[in-house]
Amino acid sequence: MDIRKQIGLNIQRIRREKGWSQEQLAFEAGLHRTYVSGVERGVRNPTVLIVQQLADALAVPPDRLLRAKISANE
Amino acid sequence: MDIRKQIGLNIQRIRREKGWSQEQLAFEAGLHRTYVSGVERGVRNPTVLIVQQLADALAVPPDRLLRAKISANE
Repeated sequence: MDIRKQIGLNIQRIRREKGWSQEQLAFEAGLHRTYVSGVERGVRNPTVLIVQQLADALAVPPDRLLRAKISANE
Repeated sequence: MDIRKQIGLNIQRIRREKGWSQEQLAFEAGLHRTYVSGVERGVRNPTVLIVQQLADALAVPPDRLLRAKISANE
């Protein structure tokens, strides 16, 4: 799977498991909501620093956002 | 550790364990050698597509390049 799609699915899954809106994740990560929406839809190509910001906001290690088939409590 | 430094250390370690030069990794990944050198030194901020290209060239899953403390045979 395209890594951008994989990251989008992982972020969306973890965000939903936390019960967060995209707005809340964007606020926590210091990003714009439309950018987070684009990342979750797999249409953005984020840098590793952005991946780090999202991972920190979601309180998961950054490599988990790139992993194929994960869930938050893994 | 800054994720750019972590990725650089991981790529360098796996490349060396494969006995590859930076030139060879750059060729396999379709990137310029100086860019690979910059990524390994942690001074570049690669996108996830670039991380995917490097991971494919090194034959490891992309999330491994972001992981803290890894080795190729893990």
